[in-house]
Amino acid sequence: MRIANALVHDVGLCDIDIAAGLFTAVRPASGAPVTGDDLDLGGALALPPMVDGHIHLDKTLLGLPWVPNQATGDRVIDRIEAERRVRAARTVPEVETGSALVRQVVANGTLHLRTHVDIDNQLGLRNLHQVLEIRERFRGLVTIQVVAFPQSGILRSPGTAELLDAAIAEGADLVGGLDPVGIDGDMDAHLNVVFAVAARHGVGVDIHLHDGGESGLVQMRAIAERSRALGLHGQVTISHGFALGSGPIDQVQRTCALLGESLVNIMTHGPGGATMPPLRLLAEHNVHVFSGSDNIRDAWSPFGNGDMLERAMLVAYRANFRHDDELASAFKMATVNGAHVLALPHYNFHSGHSADLVVVDAPSLAEAIVTRPRRKLVIKAGRVVARDGVFIG
Amino acid sequence: MRIANALVHDVGLCDIDIAAGLFTAVRPASGAPVTGDDLDLGGALALPPMVDGHIHLDKTLLGLPWVPNQATGDRVIDRIEAERRVRAARTVPEVETGSALVRQVVANGTLHLRTHVDIDNQLGLRNLHQVLEIRERFRGLVTIQVVAFPQSGILRSPGTAELLDAAIAEGADLVGGLDPVGIDGDMDAHLNVVFAVAARHGVGVDIHLHDGGESGLVQMRAIAERSRALGLHGQVTISHGFALGSGPIDQVQRTCALLGESLVNIMTHGPGGATMPPLRLLAEHNVHVFSGSDNIRDAWSPFGNGDMLERAMLVAYRANFRHDDELASAFKMATVNGAHVLALPHYNFHSGHSADLVVVDAPSLAEAIVTRPRRKLVIKAGRVVARDGVFIG
Repeated sequence: MRIANALVHDVGLCDIDIAAGLFTAVRPASGAPVTGDDLDLGGALALPPMVDGHIHLDKTLLGLPWVPNQATGDRVIDRIEAERRVRAARTVPEVETGSALVRQVVANGTLHLRTHVDIDNQLGLRNLHQVLEIRERFRGLVTIQVVAFPQSGILRSPGTAELLDAAIAEGADLVGGLDPVGIDGDMDAHLNVVFAVAARHGVGVDIHLHDGGESGLVQMRAIAERSRALGLHGQVTISHGFALGSGPIDQVQRTCALLGESLVNIMTHGPGGATMPPLRLLAEHNVHVFSGSDNIRDAWSPFGNGDMLERAMLVAYRANFRHDDELASAFKMATVNGAHVLALPHYNFHSGHSADLVVVDAPSLAEAIVTRPRRKLVIKAGRVVARDGVFIG
Repeated sequence: MRIANALVHDVGLCDIDIAAGLFTAVRPASGAPVTGDDLDLGGALALPPMVDGHIHLDKTLLGLPWVPNQATGDRVIDRIEAERRVRAARTVPEVETGSALVRQVVANGTLHLRTHVDIDNQLGLRNLHQVLEIRERFRGLVTIQVVAFPQSGILRSPGTAELLDAAIAEGADLVGGLDPVGIDGDMDAHLNVVFAVAARHGVGVDIHLHDGGESGLVQMRAIAERSRALGLHGQVTISHGFALGSGPIDQVQRTCALLGESLVNIMTHGPGGATMPPLRLLAEHNVHVFSGSDNIRDAWSPFGNGDMLERAMLVAYRANFRHDDELASAFKMATVNGAHVLALPHYNFHSGHSADLVVVDAPSLAEAIVTRPRRKLVIKAGRVVARDGVFIG
């Protein structure tokens, strides 16, 4: 099978050969007429599939009648409490709403996800079981990496430490954490649990860190130091890291340098109400920054749609990116950088890799990010799995 | 003509009667079958037309091949210099690109615009003439209010003061200004010119103020005091006002109070890289806040598409709005608040007013803002002017 006249960013007009679900060649367009099963893209832009590096498949209320936000305040803890009430009132299982979201992200061109799954003393491993079922449903189509996420804290939700251990034993891929100071009020006790689970099971770490200012930076440096001490090179991520956008500049610089040396990654969703990490400074220190949707129409946020091309726009918008190379770097955060952090094998347009691609009508990558056109085609292993924004599967 | 089964926010399912281009009744849906020219919306959401309170029709490069951003730095002055180069290289007249943008905003449900038009010693009144021609082209369909905008400053662009006077004489509706301190380095000299033009011609004022911190706040208070001294109640707007999001809190509060007392309005586009004005605090002081697109695919920004429903989302996202009433308030900034500031007569669903409305497939206003569906219908004076996102005119 040949995909003819595909515009590939930084390469040009290409013909892409596919056999047995793998790319066999990406070469300059020949102009030869297409035949049989071949597809002629007519110069449309072919992109690698997008990587949503931070999603919450178990939280979304997608597909349900609208649930107004119920948090009574603006703090993380207010939202946690509101979510516990929303959870308790749910009647449709998470496997259904989460599956609806997976279909939507695929229709938007995403084929790889890292999802955080709530683990606490209200839920136990209930949501994990739901998400593991979603993972089975979409096996072979969508990569779903699972983080066991202590959404209610570890110390303030007794029993959670043991649940994190059990979650990894049952199939979660990484251990999470949440504002060791802001939520649990004890940085070392919280991080002791998280990194002990990581060491015991040989898994990576992905910690939600909303805490701002100097406290947030102190926690980031502690995470970097523990990461280095355990030899978890490249396997530790700090999600959000708002403090990098709000702390004193000399401490921010020192923290960025330590993150770079320790190979700790940063995930940003281009927050609306919080500060952005300084993306240029992080790049100078060779920190891998990747992006994700975060909350999608759930008890935390009414926003979000699982469109990582829109996410690239939001990250670029919040980072004040305007030049074409800056827009391209925001797109990398939604693709190759996430693939690197998720350690995805066989990613991107190379011979022998899985023939996965996304086609949009746009004359350049910059214009695709700005206009975010409906995805014309999403192709997985040579097979069309979504067309014109509609999931086929 | 009857528009049956229209869902109206805060009212419910309605039948809307129209005669001679005016609403004659908005009443509870009768369930009576539709006949002849009647439209059955089947419960789709009917919204008032959107008001884009800050657009730059003369700057957009929409419809032209992609022009990468060329600014060599991040300051306002760097972007001004880059734009002067882009302007000089243009070959397609602004009346064409600006008209393309008007068609796009109408297709997105906007029927009222306030556009700033560049006036400086490179352009003279050239762009004003282009925009006045656009206004003629769309007369009867789109309200276009024109601000004579000294984009290169007043003092540092000799001759501009006289050009602002001439612009008003030739048909501009308001006089603009730009960072009296940051660009012109002399607050009083800049404001003397702006307010003298306003007083001489009896027109309103709309000043771009990017300057942050204490300096920005000092300038805002000076604008409010001059506004009060001249009796320009409600006719003065500060566009952007980033300083309200970055200055010392006690000074921000004092400034908000003065803006409220002086009836000075604030325009925000929900900036990506700059600070948001504190919308709740401004509401407490009864300051009218409205919104606009600002730059759309021009020498300043690659972003923007003229969709004010997306703008309401961006403003809400940046303001950290999550509750339904907060989403509704962001929508007001894109509709009724703008209509108030632009002093539009006959706005919104009232008997005797122009039968203008926008129809989207969404079960509630909150969901419309979150999902931003394609506009199903845009109706002006009882006539369909756009359908399924396509301009008919």
